[in-house]
Amino acid sequence: MDFAVHTLGCGSAKPSLRHQPSSTIVEFRNNLFMIDCGEGAQLAMMRKRLKFQRLRHIFLTHLHGDHVLGLPGLVSTLDLHGTGGELTIHTTSEGEKILSPILKAFAGFTDFKINFNILSPSGGETAFENHSLKIRTVRLNHRVPTLGYIFEEKPRLRHLRRDMCDFHGVPMSQFNKIKAGHDFIKPDATVIPNDRLTSPPSPSLSYAHISDTAYTPRLAEEIGPVTLLFHETTYLDADLPLAAPRGHSTARQAAEIAKASGAKWLLTGHYSSRYSDDGLFRKEAEEIFPNVILNNEGLTTDLTKL
Amino acid sequence: MDFAVHTLGCGSAKPSLRHQPSSTIVEFRNNLFMIDCGEGAQLAMMRKRLKFQRLRHIFLTHLHGDHVLGLPGLVSTLDLHGTGGELTIHTTSEGEKILSPILKAFAGFTDFKINFNILSPSGGETAFENHSLKIRTVRLNHRVPTLGYIFEEKPRLRHLRRDMCDFHGVPMSQFNKIKAGHDFIKPDATVIPNDRLTSPPSPSLSYAHISDTAYTPRLAEEIGPVTLLFHETTYLDADLPLAAPRGHSTARQAAEIAKASGAKWLLTGHYSSRYSDDGLFRKEAEEIFPNVILNNEGLTTDLTKL
Repeated sequence: MDFAVHTLGCGSAKPSLRHQPSSTIVEFRNNLFMIDCGEGAQLAMMRKRLKFQRLRHIFLTHLHGDHVLGLPGLVSTLDLHGTGGELTIHTTSEGEKILSPILKAFAGFTDFKINFNILSPSGGETAFENHSLKIRTVRLNHRVPTLGYIFEEKPRLRHLRRDMCDFHGVPMSQFNKIKAGHDFIKPDATVIPNDRLTSPPSPSLSYAHISDTAYTPRLAEEIGPVTLLFHETTYLDADLPLAAPRGHSTARQAAEIAKASGAKWLLTGHYSSRYSDDGLFRKEAEEIFPNVILNNEGLTTDLTKL
Repeated sequence: MDFAVHTLGCGSAKPSLRHQPSSTIVEFRNNLFMIDCGEGAQLAMMRKRLKFQRLRHIFLTHLHGDHVLGLPGLVSTLDLHGTGGELTIHTTSEGEKILSPILKAFAGFTDFKINFNILSPSGGETAFENHSLKIRTVRLNHRVPTLGYIFEEKPRLRHLRRDMCDFHGVPMSQFNKIKAGHDFIKPDATVIPNDRLTSPPSPSLSYAHISDTAYTPRLAEEIGPVTLLFHETTYLDADLPLAAPRGHSTARQAAEIAKASGAKWLLTGHYSSRYSDDGLFRKEAEEIFPNVILNNEGLTTDLTKL
């Protein structure tokens, strides 16, 4: 898929038979990027037929067990496959300190390599960048240092107007340059402006992953108007007094952030095990913000169709 | 249950959608004893409705990921419950060195306490003992130091012959002494020998947990004639050349140990993910030893009914 979000686990710290601990896969073109790796994430990947070989980056939001304790098992499996390659774990220096010894103890027997990309707990950094994607961090407001991740597709190429290209005799070897915005210079030195040969690119897509955090209004601006905003909805507003002291948000508060940030869609999740009807999270959020997707294990959200 | 073995996971190192990594619960009267804790063990306990509160001891066979990587998550959950109490992890000093830091990082926030009982990798020790049960270790033959565990119920009390007790006027206050084997002395100093008042106790039950190991004939004698022998059956005999170099056994070899040790029943398991028909393990073992129980996730084997 071109740009999609696969939910492996959308429960919170107390395990239940209804929801798995946190883990999400962002599929972007040929790559899989994992955000958090709660226990059971590797099995959830297998159930979704997401190939381990395509996973080269794992981004950790913070160091609570329900977000990282599937990592040793997953890394051990990647190592067992014996196909070599590298995995980069994006976390704070504290994360490397805590996780590195256990990963070394249970993996590293083949030529599979683990790198750490050390991030500042203050956010505001680029965690990853290539020619088509940038992943930046924002500082969340939880009980321990916690990062959110914003996946931003870089501007797409302009669409060629095939009829105009044919009319002006643009050779195929020039297509990539024209799509990138260059004018076409004919053999007789006539300049054909780019906008005669192309139409504007499709809008770039973006995804924000905001878990775990107390309601923090400044986040709306820092996140910006993304295509899809996952914002934790640990509690319902009926339990509002529990949320802030525990560094979590209610579904209504998540919807307030979605509205203020200009997000197109809101994805719920990180549900407390105290509730048995997840539909209530959507219902509460929809009172503030209309476009709510109710998260669940195994859900795939295709950003190109939003 | 009085004495039962609950299988949480009976797969081997490579995860699959068919079998979970290793974990077993031995239920003995009111206590749950866990042997190994592969990823997902806590969820498997919940599925079997085995209460976390009854679990106070975890015995590790060795330090491969598929036998221990569910431990941090389980311990974190026990801690989260906030009900206090203690958990003792029985492992080698190497086990404490590797596991202690990660357990400290993800648990220990409430007054829940983790102890380590350090065992010798040479086996031949008593790992646990109370008035009714003894758990001893045997050294297995794997690629890293590995222990098997033998659960031996202590001799049961003799059965009272109610009619004879009434006839001789034995008061209820004496029943426990009589069941323990004492004679009864009447008020007139007449001695009634114990065997007139009681019949022999039911035979004591025993369980041996032998995973992971290459075929090792000396084990038969060290294990002894247990009621139920779990002996790993990682491979089928068709793949015999793989077994010993990897420190594993075939189903036929497990059956040879069951036969030589005088076990009553053999329980299979630790299946390699290369096979799709588990029934072949039973079929192969039954050619050597008739009483084979085919293991699977969620299976409960009640020793009192064997």
